[in-house]
Amino acid sequence: MTTATPAPLTTGGSANEFHVYDTTLRDGAQQEGLSLSVNDKLVIARHLDDLGVGFIEGGWPGAIPKDTEFFARAARELSLRNAVLAAFGATRRPGGTAAADPQVRALLASQAAMVTLVAKCHPRHVEQALRTTLEENLAMVVDTVRFLVAEGRRVVLDAEHFFDGYRDDPAYALEVVERAAQAGAEVVALCDTNGGMLPPQIADAVNEVLGATGARLGIHCHNDTGCAVANSLAAIEAGATHVQGTLNGYGERTGNADLVTVVANLVIKRQRLVLEPQRLREATRIAHAVSEVTNVVPYSRQPYVGASAFAHKGGLHASAIRVDPGLYQHADPRAVGNDMRMLVSDMAGRASIELKGRELGYDLAGQGEVLSRITDRVKALEARGYTFDAADASFELLLREEVDGERARFFDVESWRVITDSRPDACAMSEATVKLFAAGRRVVATGEGNGPVNALDQALRQALLPAYPELEPLQLIDFRVRILDAAHGTDATTRVLIETSDGATSWGTVGVAPNIVEASWEALVDGICYGLVRHGVQRR
Amino acid sequence: MTTATPAPLTTGGSANEFHVYDTTLRDGAQQEGLSLSVNDKLVIARHLDDLGVGFIEGGWPGAIPKDTEFFARAARELSLRNAVLAAFGATRRPGGTAAADPQVRALLASQAAMVTLVAKCHPRHVEQALRTTLEENLAMVVDTVRFLVAEGRRVVLDAEHFFDGYRDDPAYALEVVERAAQAGAEVVALCDTNGGMLPPQIADAVNEVLGATGARLGIHCHNDTGCAVANSLAAIEAGATHVQGTLNGYGERTGNADLVTVVANLVIKRQRLVLEPQRLREATRIAHAVSEVTNVVPYSRQPYVGASAFAHKGGLHASAIRVDPGLYQHADPRAVGNDMRMLVSDMAGRASIELKGRELGYDLAGQGEVLSRITDRVKALEARGYTFDAADASFELLLREEVDGERARFFDVESWRVITDSRPDACAMSEATVKLFAAGRRVVATGEGNGPVNALDQALRQALLPAYPELEPLQLIDFRVRILDAAHGTDATTRVLIETSDGATSWGTVGVAPNIVEASWEALVDGICYGLVRHGVQRR
Repeated sequence: MTTATPAPLTTGGSANEFHVYDTTLRDGAQQEGLSLSVNDKLVIARHLDDLGVGFIEGGWPGAIPKDTEFFARAARELSLRNAVLAAFGATRRPGGTAAADPQVRALLASQAAMVTLVAKCHPRHVEQALRTTLEENLAMVVDTVRFLVAEGRRVVLDAEHFFDGYRDDPAYALEVVERAAQAGAEVVALCDTNGGMLPPQIADAVNEVLGATGARLGIHCHNDTGCAVANSLAAIEAGATHVQGTLNGYGERTGNADLVTVVANLVIKRQRLVLEPQRLREATRIAHAVSEVTNVVPYSRQPYVGASAFAHKGGLHASAIRVDPGLYQHADPRAVGNDMRMLVSDMAGRASIELKGRELGYDLAGQGEVLSRITDRVKALEARGYTFDAADASFELLLREEVDGERARFFDVESWRVITDSRPDACAMSEATVKLFAAGRRVVATGEGNGPVNALDQALRQALLPAYPELEPLQLIDFRVRILDAAHGTDATTRVLIETSDGATSWGTVGVAPNIVEASWEALVDGICYGLVRHGVQRR
Repeated sequence: MTTATPAPLTTGGSANEFHVYDTTLRDGAQQEGLSLSVNDKLVIARHLDDLGVGFIEGGWPGAIPKDTEFFARAARELSLRNAVLAAFGATRRPGGTAAADPQVRALLASQAAMVTLVAKCHPRHVEQALRTTLEENLAMVVDTVRFLVAEGRRVVLDAEHFFDGYRDDPAYALEVVERAAQAGAEVVALCDTNGGMLPPQIADAVNEVLGATGARLGIHCHNDTGCAVANSLAAIEAGATHVQGTLNGYGERTGNADLVTVVANLVIKRQRLVLEPQRLREATRIAHAVSEVTNVVPYSRQPYVGASAFAHKGGLHASAIRVDPGLYQHADPRAVGNDMRMLVSDMAGRASIELKGRELGYDLAGQGEVLSRITDRVKALEARGYTFDAADASFELLLREEVDGERARFFDVESWRVITDSRPDACAMSEATVKLFAAGRRVVATGEGNGPVNALDQALRQALLPAYPELEPLQLIDFRVRILDAAHGTDATTRVLIETSDGATSWGTVGVAPNIVEASWEALVDGICYGLVRHGVQRR
């Protein structure tokens, strides 16, 4: 390998050697289906600060009322330990002055220590979108940067569509960079706004711009060619010392560069300490916490922090992993706060089941017959639509049943029923009745809820509490539904995954049935049984 | 830009100049949550052939019974027009002969014209996972390649863990490549099995191996650093002429290189015609059709073929796109069979709503007051959990209501109720009763179904058919549920998205309520109303 490894860099928040600049709250929020309240933004900003990024771009005050409010509340409520807040905005309007431009004044009023100005450097964009002259566009950049610097702000210039512009008219694109730097911009971030570049183009351009202007350069990439991370790294190898990205790669179209992936690659693969290792260990937790706030389903295949990122399923791999986990992992999952997982699947075979058993505390080595029975049952259930990847608790109940010779049964169900009624001028209500035998007695209980699963959960809990008071702290915390379509069988089947918590920890269970309510019931019952097993409760 | 553009290459199926090699059915199937039946594999193979890939790796005959069956059925049932089938397998066992090895014989018996042999070239893997000597490992490679070539098979050697091995012991890794090529392997595919590499490492290694051995090289990447696509491209720029990947980037952990993204980049960005342009235009359709078979939810941010890949939401962009769509797109979405879309969102403002209206056939330019009312209502509904990104029909009903001054109302609902009952030894059944007024008459109808939504759909349709026989062909074809958690409000809210089809086309509607049944009802009603509006039906 002939690639030179650059010297390690120190960091710490907004240290000057290298900028880790997050734009989740501004460019990330452009993602389809994503909408952040001011509260959401404040919560995410705290997570970003915990992660140790140097800069948090909070939004566009003056242009978006929610963002104006964000900066006002951030000044009062956020006490950031690591990060500097940046306000995003545009250069002054054509023909005016920066000092008199209401949008520029709103940037000042935001009290953000850093201002990131978007500017055009592609002649077609200047003429067709901005509808001004190339000369006036340069004046807008210079005036606005100078004005903000004179007012004591650190300024980043986001050179929009830089790489397209540089391809079509390199002289003009270079002039924008040069004039912005001369006017006092601390960094000129070259943006692949349309996301169409590949790494060699980025590397060449950054090299050339650095040589021609000497300006401090940043990089802002989108993932339209699937190369946002590689493009960011190519720019950094070529000399950029400021990288922009978003948590979970949120962003318009295919998203922005995933900041955690970029940073993890720099720290783990290139030994560039742009983030403190103990903060990087928070990355998985923070990426998932943020997806709770954004309500965007986490992408399980996300590099480093995805639920599947260190999950192994192949039978070939599983048997080798028993020998040496390092052989099949490109990095230690703990470095980003993630875990290695063995998946239970019909492809895995007995080696994976044995490993999974070990993970759960069962030594199945040498118990060939039990292993075979479990493997067969898992295969048969998967053929019917079950999946145990996200339902460890249901798998453990099955495993225990085969190991112990009988299923943990805490009660016997006679029947259940749920009625959901529309109500005039109010939300629909659901009412569930459960009839079962527990602790030697027949119990009939009715529960109400704002949905059928909620009502069944209430009724079941009410029926069981007298016999099993240990159920008191249990709570249904997540509920996911997937319709398995006809491609997999003749009839549509519903798979329900439920997450149950006892306050300290949580576990997943699965139910499958044509009827969504029945599938939910199955997962609910497993969730409660597992809670009792977990607390060592015996049948009463 | 100084990057040299290689000369265009012709292609067509399994043409020799460049191999587009798909391993969705083998390596892709290792993905968490993915399980393919033999039928599924046959369906996907036909899609891959339509896409025009040169090679389809079907599985591991002899090791996985389902895969043995796949090759047997493929020989009888598949008539591929473009692609060559490849069987994946291992070299002979240590100490034996290739001719007598049952696993090697199973590869022959599969009748696949190409055999891809996985071989180790990393000393630690040879010694610890394979438990044999370095010399015997070389003999295993040479014997097995020679035997299969003598039997008339084309052979690819998958050099597993190549890049890790090359880093730790370059001489041994090179020897494996050299010996395989000398023994008759057509291609040696260098595999970044653990996915930990970055593009410069890949480029350097491919350059060096090519210089040292002269073997024809392929590349097989995983996405653990988020660089699978860029790594594949780096290898190709360095001289590899065979690329392996999977549809939708399926694969273990973070997945394999997304073959469509790699190919689209080569064709569109590098002008290398490794796939015929008219076949590339099928890519979006095929990627989505395959996700129907795999039952893996499509990733909306997927490059080129994702639902969001050419979707625009920002107000800034939206106003510029009116001027020139080319300014904000890195490629023509039609080149991959995708479309530009304008999203309706609280961030977009009136410019996007106006464009969206135009997309739907409404000219709202100059109708400032109507535009403001629609924008305000969309904002208010989004704040309550609605999303119109995937519910164009619900949005159009809202837009029509504001334009026409009243909502399209075809009937008036009095009440509805759904009962779901467990049944001994049978699936639970749901029964719905709907009471409504249509065509001047009060109707009470009851429907049964295998779930509450299905039952409501039956009852509603039955109640309306006498007045609106146009509803006959309508069918509910997709149903998605999302629980919006408490981070967005005090109570959990359920959002239901429904897709309704009239056989010719389909449309999406949305419902939001605390109760999943009520949210479903709302989306069902919108779906039916839109079907009537669409067919120009008047209220009766």
